[in-house]
Amino acid sequence: MAKEKVILAYSGGLDTSIIMTWLKENYDYDVIAVCCNAGQKEDFAAIEKKALATGASKAITVDMREEFITDFIWPTLKAGAVYENEYMLGTSMARPLMAKKLVEIAQQEEAFYIAHGCTGKGNDQVRFETTIKALDPAIKIIAPWRFWDFESREDLLEYAKSHNIPINQSEAKIYSRDENIWHISHEGGELENPWNEHYDTIHVLSVPPEKAPDKVTYVDIDFEAGVPVGLDGEKMGPIELLTKLNELGSVNGVGTADIIENRLVGMKSRGVYETPGGTILFAAHSALEKLILDRDTTQYKYIVAQKFAQLVYDGLWFTPLREAISAFVDETQKLVTGTVKMKLYKGSATAAARKSPNSLYSEEFATFSKDEVYNQSDADGFINLFSLPLKIRAIQKQNKEGGAKPHETLERKVLKGGDFVR
Amino acid sequence: MAKEKVILAYSGGLDTSIIMTWLKENYDYDVIAVCCNAGQKEDFAAIEKKALATGASKAITVDMREEFITDFIWPTLKAGAVYENEYMLGTSMARPLMAKKLVEIAQQEEAFYIAHGCTGKGNDQVRFETTIKALDPAIKIIAPWRFWDFESREDLLEYAKSHNIPINQSEAKIYSRDENIWHISHEGGELENPWNEHYDTIHVLSVPPEKAPDKVTYVDIDFEAGVPVGLDGEKMGPIELLTKLNELGSVNGVGTADIIENRLVGMKSRGVYETPGGTILFAAHSALEKLILDRDTTQYKYIVAQKFAQLVYDGLWFTPLREAISAFVDETQKLVTGTVKMKLYKGSATAAARKSPNSLYSEEFATFSKDEVYNQSDADGFINLFSLPLKIRAIQKQNKEGGAKPHETLERKVLKGGDFVR
Amino acid sequence: MAKEKVILAYSGGLDTSIIMTWLKENYDYDVIAVCCNAGQKEDFAAIEKKALATGASKAITVDMREEFITDFIWPTLKAGAVYENEYMLGTSMARPLMAKKLVEIAQQEEAFYIAHGCTGKGNDQVRFETTIKALDPAIKIIAPWRFWDFESREDLLEYAKSHNIPINQSEAKIYSRDENIWHISHEGGELENPWNEHYDTIHVLSVPPEKAPDKVTYVDIDFEAGVPVGLDGEKMGPIELLTKLNELGSVNGVGTADIIENRLVGMKSRGVYETPGGTILFAAHSALEKLILDRDTTQYKYIVAQKFAQLVYDGLWFTPLREAISAFVDETQKLVTGTVKMKLYKGSATAAARKSPNSLYSEEFATFSKDEVYNQSDADGFINLFSLPLKIRAIQKQNKEGGAKPHETLERKVLKGGDFVR
Amino acid sequence: MAKEKVILAYSGGLDTSIIMTWLKENYDYDVIAVCCNAGQKEDFAAIEKKALATGASKAITVDMREEFITDFIWPTLKAGAVYENEYMLGTSMARPLMAKKLVEIAQQEEAFYIAHGCTGKGNDQVRFETTIKALDPAIKIIAPWRFWDFESREDLLEYAKSHNIPINQSEAKIYSRDENIWHISHEGGELENPWNEHYDTIHVLSVPPEKAPDKVTYVDIDFEAGVPVGLDGEKMGPIELLTKLNELGSVNGVGTADIIENRLVGMKSRGVYETPGGTILFAAHSALEKLILDRDTTQYKYIVAQKFAQLVYDGLWFTPLREAISAFVDETQKLVTGTVKMKLYKGSATAAARKSPNSLYSEEFATFSKDEVYNQSDADGFINLFSLPLKIRAIQKQNKEGGAKPHETLERKVLKGGDFVR
Repeated sequence: MAKEKVILAYSGGLDTSIIMTWLKENYDYDVIAVCCNAGQKEDFAAIEKKALATGASKAITVDMREEFITDFIWPTLKAGAVYENEYMLGTSMARPLMAKKLVEIAQQEEAFYIAHGCTGKGNDQVRFETTIKALDPAIKIIAPWRFWDFESREDLLEYAKSHNIPINQSEAKIYSRDENIWHISHEGGELENPWNEHYDTIHVLSVPPEKAPDKVTYVDIDFEAGVPVGLDGEKMGPIELLTKLNELGSVNGVGTADIIENRLVGMKSRGVYETPGGTILFAAHSALEKLILDRDTTQYKYIVAQKFAQLVYDGLWFTPLREAISAFVDETQKLVTGTVKMKLYKGSATAAARKSPNSLYSEEFATFSKDEVYNQSDADGFINLFSLPLKIRAIQKQNKEGGAKPHETLERKVLKGGDFVR
Repeated sequence: MAKEKVILAYSGGLDTSIIMTWLKENYDYDVIAVCCNAGQKEDFAAIEKKALATGASKAITVDMREEFITDFIWPTLKAGAVYENEYMLGTSMARPLMAKKLVEIAQQEEAFYIAHGCTGKGNDQVRFETTIKALDPAIKIIAPWRFWDFESREDLLEYAKSHNIPINQSEAKIYSRDENIWHISHEGGELENPWNEHYDTIHVLSVPPEKAPDKVTYVDIDFEAGVPVGLDGEKMGPIELLTKLNELGSVNGVGTADIIENRLVGMKSRGVYETPGGTILFAAHSALEKLILDRDTTQYKYIVAQKFAQLVYDGLWFTPLREAISAFVDETQKLVTGTVKMKLYKGSATAAARKSPNSLYSEEFATFSKDEVYNQSDADGFINLFSLPLKIRAIQKQNKEGGAKPHETLERKVLKGGDFVR
Repeated sequence: MAKEKVILAYSGGLDTSIIMTWLKENYDYDVIAVCCNAGQKEDFAAIEKKALATGASKAITVDMREEFITDFIWPTLKAGAVYENEYMLGTSMARPLMAKKLVEIAQQEEAFYIAHGCTGKGNDQVRFETTIKALDPAIKIIAPWRFWDFESREDLLEYAKSHNIPINQSEAKIYSRDENIWHISHEGGELENPWNEHYDTIHVLSVPPEKAPDKVTYVDIDFEAGVPVGLDGEKMGPIELLTKLNELGSVNGVGTADIIENRLVGMKSRGVYETPGGTILFAAHSALEKLILDRDTTQYKYIVAQKFAQLVYDGLWFTPLREAISAFVDETQKLVTGTVKMKLYKGSATAAARKSPNSLYSEEFATFSKDEVYNQSDADGFINLFSLPLKIRAIQKQNKEGGAKPHETLERKVLKGGDFVR
Repeated sequence: MAKEKVILAYSGGLDTSIIMTWLKENYDYDVIAVCCNAGQKEDFAAIEKKALATGASKAITVDMREEFITDFIWPTLKAGAVYENEYMLGTSMARPLMAKKLVEIAQQEEAFYIAHGCTGKGNDQVRFETTIKALDPAIKIIAPWRFWDFESREDLLEYAKSHNIPINQSEAKIYSRDENIWHISHEGGELENPWNEHYDTIHVLSVPPEKAPDKVTYVDIDFEAGVPVGLDGEKMGPIELLTKLNELGSVNGVGTADIIENRLVGMKSRGVYETPGGTILFAAHSALEKLILDRDTTQYKYIVAQKFAQLVYDGLWFTPLREAISAFVDETQKLVTGTVKMKLYKGSATAAARKSPNSLYSEEFATFSKDEVYNQSDADGFINLFSLPLKIRAIQKQNKEGGAKPHETLERKVLKGGDFVR
């Protein structure tokens, strides 16, 4: 009789290598190692080889980069969603897609279990498991960190040694990291004390601003319906475009955020994130929207973006509310087409100029000379009605308090004289 | 019989100088010129002299700097309110206080009118007038720009010449500007085309990032209950503190925003703002809050801050809703006490480190080793209930669609075996 | 040369009859009278005849009932939008469609003007004019109430008499009313003093609850994707369905609301509304959603519904934000299919029972016995993480305050003993 | 050596009686039975006697009725908070106060444990435990339902019989109920199928509408700063006032809600609630606010009320966010003083009339004749600026689409003629 199969979310790193051995040792399952290529800089062939060498019955690499960008990053960019105004959701967006891939493979392979290496204190376990439950609630989840006996990195290293699991030099790592085509995150080390400044050496994807060249770089980004489609006038696919912007951002020290955030599981954590291209894109997209969206939509969309960010952070991508908010967002983006000239310099990415065929900004309307659309005397009536509740409240208050103010007597006398006076 | 008196919001510039003459010419009022010192760099004695020389029956300068900071800027800082995520409300916060001062003087002087020089296309007319109506609805407002016959700057210059109104060199100005201790704004000139980058020469308060020194500056900011009270360990009053931060920000090119915003009166406008000290303060305050506020409060406060910003922008400072939101904000700020180390460099101001006696961040809680407060196995139950609606929805959907998936049969067989499997 | 043409929103009542004559008298335009049939109980042939008899060059009746229901009422019902939690938007929803029809006819007839009979103090002028400007900004609007010399109903009656405009008996009316297939509104008369109870005689569409039969009526309403499609198991078109529900509601005294509302133009007003069928539908739709929508969607939709209601009330139907919110709403409604049994009795309409193929409610999940989906011990972990921020805050506070509480010493002693204790 | 002490939240019912015996049998603790009098109709002396007779070392009754009303119900009433627009939070408001009392007694008695009888599927366990953790995180919580072996009511009854625990007749109950001075809730029985109508016999506190007298009852309710202080002109304390309103509501069949709600723990449940006095109070309070609060405050407060309701429902009373929202609410309530005449009839409670010294409603302002405060021609300017974004958008769209519409040519010809035309 065939063994049970378990799909293991496998990165080739220490933790998931140990989980593979541990699963086989304790449960005698066939372990199918699945490595998701979300754009992290890894040698996936070597990872597959390592998986098979250390006991996997099968090793699969899934290139999910394009789907990641078009189905997860672009919708989040269009929403303008940034968690707690700082975190650009790099890991949060990737987890539901990874989990979706794991479920698909589990269904193909007729595997009944999915195992992952997330700890019991983080957000990622939630993001994986909500997605799995939403997509196939019959699949059973194995999260060894929540119940095995290892309590520290030392325990893991010892287990690895005793089981001949190869350990990279970098495994003696200071930081806990997660990388994909959108960002890299860093936790641990000196970051654990919020009164420590993070070291310059933490940077992986980008240079610190101080080491960026002392000259300005410009790049024009073209958007269609809220989605970036080209750079400097040249049409590009999503992977090429984001890769190019990552390069530009990295060189110029753009996109580092050093954050204290509120995890879903109830505690605060400190992280440093590098999101070079993403930071440029969010600034550019927002700058373009300013030209095109009306005031009501602009301001309501900020509220909606907060919710969107929270849902994504909390692993609630595959939910009715996230989908409904995306429907809202997509409706707002129909006219968000145009070009933003971004200026990159020593860590900053700012919109220097912008244009759109759908711009609601108009030189004629905004400047102070007479024009046909706007009649300055309209402001009289507008202000009178806009402030009417305040005026009524003040009058009622005066009435209640009795006695008229000195100038009120005056008022009656003069009122007829000045017909321009409101 | 005494003449009618009008209080004129007087800046000493071309527009209000012309209004003074024009009021006297057309209405034979006594004009009392009131100049509000909100921290703009002006020679107020000279302005008073000019007012009297050009016809004012009285000239009054009001130093409202401290009240401006403590009663308007600090509440907005505590709220974290930024209009459309970019504009730090420098002019918006000043207008209601100026209008309040004008009303107080009108009541003291038994003047029946207040005149201002705001155009009919901007927000400031609304901010002045809502405040006046809220505080003393019997006062009549004269807004010459909305009904006189001048249609252009040229008309004004001609009128000035023909009436011997002195014109400064800078009156041939390109930009329309508003300055106070918090910021300076610039409109007009090349800004009117959003595809133009703003010129470096637009800067008044600060250097452009490219011209800032190529070295990092640090400053520690101390907060008590959400309010900044000291720098680098030294207690300071509000004027001194903000002035010092303005210097640090200016030198390091911090705080320039080039924005397209939605005016209350229904059109978009482009402006460049320099807010050097304010930009540092907002970043520092937000960084400190991250250490202290819980997740629910943090995220709800963002929503409330949007509303606060909109109310302030729209001139609705003296309203029940703004006051109620401030009550909310003040309650959240009680524990926002601590220190933030800000790093200034080439235009950016970031929080390098932070500490607070009321921090909810805890190294022990956040790191991955075992601790007493957090039991990793709690995550099992948490995730199960957190994702329960998704699971139920998926099950109902599967039931509705009929046939079980292949691995479901498998499930029944194995379930007993793995008691750790959820 | 042909005369200019003006499209007049014509009801056949006193005001618009006078406007017709007044327009011809003062401007020598060709007046095209357009009467919109939104379901009000009128003899439209007679109205057309009257229009032509009193000077219209053309009289057009537009039956917009079905479009009104499917394109305006159903979207508002799906949104669950009720203005200030009480007003069911009967007039607000009708105005943009009427204005759209007027614009279409203006374009067909090559008329350059649209005239309406709304006063300058109400919401309807805004609703008409925002729509006209949104759909065809070149059309000029004539709103006589805002500039002619009549100041009172008496002035109007006199003008009518002197110009041989026929006046109905009911023109000596107490109430200002607006009726369509969704509702009738009443303003004026005794309502102007909020300390007056409204008279029973105000009712037009329905009986007061006290006069309804003393027995319960049931009706089953079938919904598909949030839209009502049948009653008591019988499929019906929108007009038939709403008409039938209006009858049931009217007989049972359902749907009267006596409201003080905040008008857009800054003042409060008192109105009585009869919305018999609509009240039943909103209650039914909401009851069905409770069975189907998850908690996050349910609660977020309430927030969105508030905004939707405000936009509709303010005449902002044809705006990007209303459209984006409708996209959100439509996404939430995809599964809102099922049946609600409504119980009507003496003024109340309550959901007695409900069922849906997409229900997330499950007897097994909700009851207290063991089941497979819900493991009660999960609640341990859930509560521990859910309350973790509170616990951390309390611990930090205790630490800050120093000394441990008496029972804390105890704790250490006992903790090992009770492994079930959390 | 002294035994450990456990505080048991004791009701005298079957479940908590069994827990008492079970605690003593399994853990040899001293059990201190605490019965909280929140206004439920019980013989507390008899309950104390039963507690001591069945093993409690001590029995304490806490009369928390007045604190419940003034510190929990009134703040919720002022907020206007209703969970999911239907549930008036009767149980949700009581739990945190009960838990606070248990913590206080635990501290006094130097008890280290608190035990409660909530099941693992409901909200109440969360509400109890969040409060305990927020107030004294060192206290350990015992929730037997989540880990003992009883799986059904039958198991409990058998255990009771075998341990000589007296069982009331009513213990063979159909419904699970929770009662206090604000409401009674009912779950279970026929309610578990949402397609069942609830039986008339479910009513405990009130008659069904059909059995209420066929005549109208009026009651005037006086409010001060948002808090009810008297009935029919007579000042009353909170207990007396609420008791009197409960009587009036009960007789008239007011306040029954049959609801499907989303529990915090991720599932839906069906409940019937009777809240006779509370339903009257909410309607009255809301009606009074409509007279007094301005539009912005009114509408923002609805949003805030949703959050307040959710926090209370979720057991998050003692949290920074709930406290901050209460600060907001209290600020809005300062002027909410006045009287509402409520009309009770056959299940409905509606505001027939209202008055306030702080009313913003004004007969003069709202009616259609000329007045000094409101100038109808102001509406021109108001509408022009209010609709300006729509107009600009439409113009830009027309420009983009090219060709002018027929009547645009016409426009230029006529424009000069009609100076009243906007």
